[in-house]
Amino acid sequence: MTMMDVINKKRLGQELSEEDLEFSFLGYFRGTVPDYQMSALLMAICLKGMTDEEVLKVTDLMIHSGEVLDLSGVDGVTVDKHSTGGVGDKTTLIVSSIVASLGIKVPKMSGRGLGHTGGTIDKLESIPGFRTDLNREDFIRQVNQVGFAIIGQTPHLAPLDKKVYALRDVTGTVESIPLIASSIMSKKIASGADKIVLDVKVGKGALLKTQEEALEISRLMKKIGEHYGKEVDTMITYMDIPLGTSIGNALEILEVMKILSNEENNYLVALSKALAAKMVQLGLGISIEDAHHRVEESLKTGKAYQKFMEMVEAQGGNIGGLRVSAYTKDVLSTKAGHIVDMDAYRFGKLSLELGGGRKTKEDKIDPKVGIVLKKKIGDDVKVGDVLCTLYVKEPEYEPKEDITDYYTMKKLSGSKKQENLDTI
Amino acid sequence: MTMMDVINKKRLGQELSEEDLEFSFLGYFRGTVPDYQMSALLMAICLKGMTDEEVLKVTDLMIHSGEVLDLSGVDGVTVDKHSTGGVGDKTTLIVSSIVASLGIKVPKMSGRGLGHTGGTIDKLESIPGFRTDLNREDFIRQVNQVGFAIIGQTPHLAPLDKKVYALRDVTGTVESIPLIASSIMSKKIASGADKIVLDVKVGKGALLKTQEEALEISRLMKKIGEHYGKEVDTMITYMDIPLGTSIGNALEILEVMKILSNEENNYLVALSKALAAKMVQLGLGISIEDAHHRVEESLKTGKAYQKFMEMVEAQGGNIGGLRVSAYTKDVLSTKAGHIVDMDAYRFGKLSLELGGGRKTKEDKIDPKVGIVLKKKIGDDVKVGDVLCTLYVKEPEYEPKEDITDYYTMKKLSGSKKQENLDTI
Repeated sequence: MTMMDVINKKRLGQELSEEDLEFSFLGYFRGTVPDYQMSALLMAICLKGMTDEEVLKVTDLMIHSGEVLDLSGVDGVTVDKHSTGGVGDKTTLIVSSIVASLGIKVPKMSGRGLGHTGGTIDKLESIPGFRTDLNREDFIRQVNQVGFAIIGQTPHLAPLDKKVYALRDVTGTVESIPLIASSIMSKKIASGADKIVLDVKVGKGALLKTQEEALEISRLMKKIGEHYGKEVDTMITYMDIPLGTSIGNALEILEVMKILSNEENNYLVALSKALAAKMVQLGLGISIEDAHHRVEESLKTGKAYQKFMEMVEAQGGNIGGLRVSAYTKDVLSTKAGHIVDMDAYRFGKLSLELGGGRKTKEDKIDPKVGIVLKKKIGDDVKVGDVLCTLYVKEPEYEPKEDITDYYTMKKLSGSKKQENLDTI
Repeated sequence: MTMMDVINKKRLGQELSEEDLEFSFLGYFRGTVPDYQMSALLMAICLKGMTDEEVLKVTDLMIHSGEVLDLSGVDGVTVDKHSTGGVGDKTTLIVSSIVASLGIKVPKMSGRGLGHTGGTIDKLESIPGFRTDLNREDFIRQVNQVGFAIIGQTPHLAPLDKKVYALRDVTGTVESIPLIASSIMSKKIASGADKIVLDVKVGKGALLKTQEEALEISRLMKKIGEHYGKEVDTMITYMDIPLGTSIGNALEILEVMKILSNEENNYLVALSKALAAKMVQLGLGISIEDAHHRVEESLKTGKAYQKFMEMVEAQGGNIGGLRVSAYTKDVLSTKAGHIVDMDAYRFGKLSLELGGGRKTKEDKIDPKVGIVLKKKIGDDVKVGDVLCTLYVKEPEYEPKEDITDYYTMKKLSGSKKQENLDTI
């Protein structure tokens, strides 16, 4: 067998055997298959797809390319969650605080941001002193004591996925349902939790663009979970707009604290509650109605807020030292109208440009910069209204384009204030 | 613009702009686009195709990545030919000898073999002393004096195509009609001849598998030719069997001499005459009937044979020194039947294994080894009949598999000898 045989088979739309997949994926992992052959195979997979058997095999190769976390030292049921990413997405922090406050163990490994999407680890590192590099023992001890801990993904977790993902990321081969499913699930299985809730995002700003794709990846990820005896539930959510009102690392930590203090009530809050309820349902084995009730209670009583603070403290974070930039710049609307849409991708790119994200893995993030949205879908806007506030590095910063264009506005039919469209 | 934008556009099936193609192809040529991104783009092109405008642009980039041969120093009309390759294909040598003997100038650049197909340059180099590295002046002088000359492709001829082809060759991205068309035509246009005849091969042993693909590539190559004011004609030929009776470098030179001496009459001879007639029709501007007549006359009078010998002598070759291996091994049939098919690809691989080809560009070729076919399509075979004779390096050589399996045989219905199926 040669790599050419494998590439040609997939190019012609044929199913790859277990041997083909081992030869190509493990060969790439070990360095005997060069990146230019692997990227050709990945593009053929993008365009010709994979069968369920192929996906199961690839996922298995990824899982066993590294260590599978042993969580037997954790007392009680462990529940993990994953989102397929998005602009302004801080659900992990909100949801884990709620769920852990209800006695479920949340051992969480999170990623860093790249491109226009942010990463949970970057957000946490905007808190001075916060350590995301706990060793295995300290991680499990904290999960047992506090109920949750969030650390960065170790290089030992599905390293084959890491290597393949890095190549996909620079070869236009990210948008493949079978590849996305095997990538997510290999990390989730290797992370060791008993039960997993997957937040599958659909829309302009997300990897998946249609409901059909979301249903297909849900089916596939559940099937992979079953294969390893893991209970998996998914929730399809719509991510056409930035999540919440803040984009940027320190700004998003502040927003999490506001939400856990019940000071916000928007789509992000509703989404977080729904995800938390799914995790509670799985973790405690109770009905979804009961789970919703417990989630509301945790928030109202301040238990979730307290749990977040416990976690930050346990990981060495000094929340009092959190800072956002002193330089702000209001973006004034150059149009009048009724906001019917917002382009999450362009907001993500703007945050990146402000210094809040990474263009390459080596880039340094500025935790203090970002965007706070002042107008949202359903709002009426006049020319000169503040659409959003930019937290910038230097006072003389000027946006390169008219940010009003990130909003889709309909002409105002009257002066009547419209209903807020935030729904789940 | 980034390479990711270009890859994603093509992955989604969109047309690439001139800027996109310059950015990606020239970027790859200059080394600013890495091979793993280029191979992903090439796979997307294989599976999503290219428009005629895209093909014209890519071809132009390839042509102007190197020098365009100035043939203004050649007196008279120049005609070039190209075959899309095959096992045992020595038409270039036969056809050029005939055409040059009729007063048409044939300035020929040819390639080396790789994998299971042979190369004209390798065949010529089996003649002791034969020089394939004439400089530009000597090349043009010989074309004027002898009527034809055959040299290896210089690295200055469409070097972008060379670089892209080398990558396609190892990434399963060879089989793309737009990419094949631009690769062939860029070299033909850069080679400078006024008129071009293209032998488009279809079948199991060829790059193109169906008649539709052959028609499509013919259309495309004519269109590219027109764009540069070149008269282009194509001939679709079927290559499901090895061409002629010999495979292997020195053996094929011997076969060329036999054919030019009118000692053979098979499919290869008919094919060569048909191709030569097309070139004569174009070169002299006469009818195809007249052209056929001239071709027959050149062969019958021995002019074509004489022209071949002139060319060999002019390039320093000592035809008397040509040698084939002293060690031969008859392959006896293990089956009885009527031969209805032969697997050209497997014969090509066998010749490669005997030492007559290159697995990698660095491999040394043994010009003395090869295969002489003794039975062909239409023949009846008994168990123990000699199917072919192998010219081997060492007397103790044993084939790794039963070569009888390369032949498809039908059970004999009677003892009556069948008609020879050789047709064009």
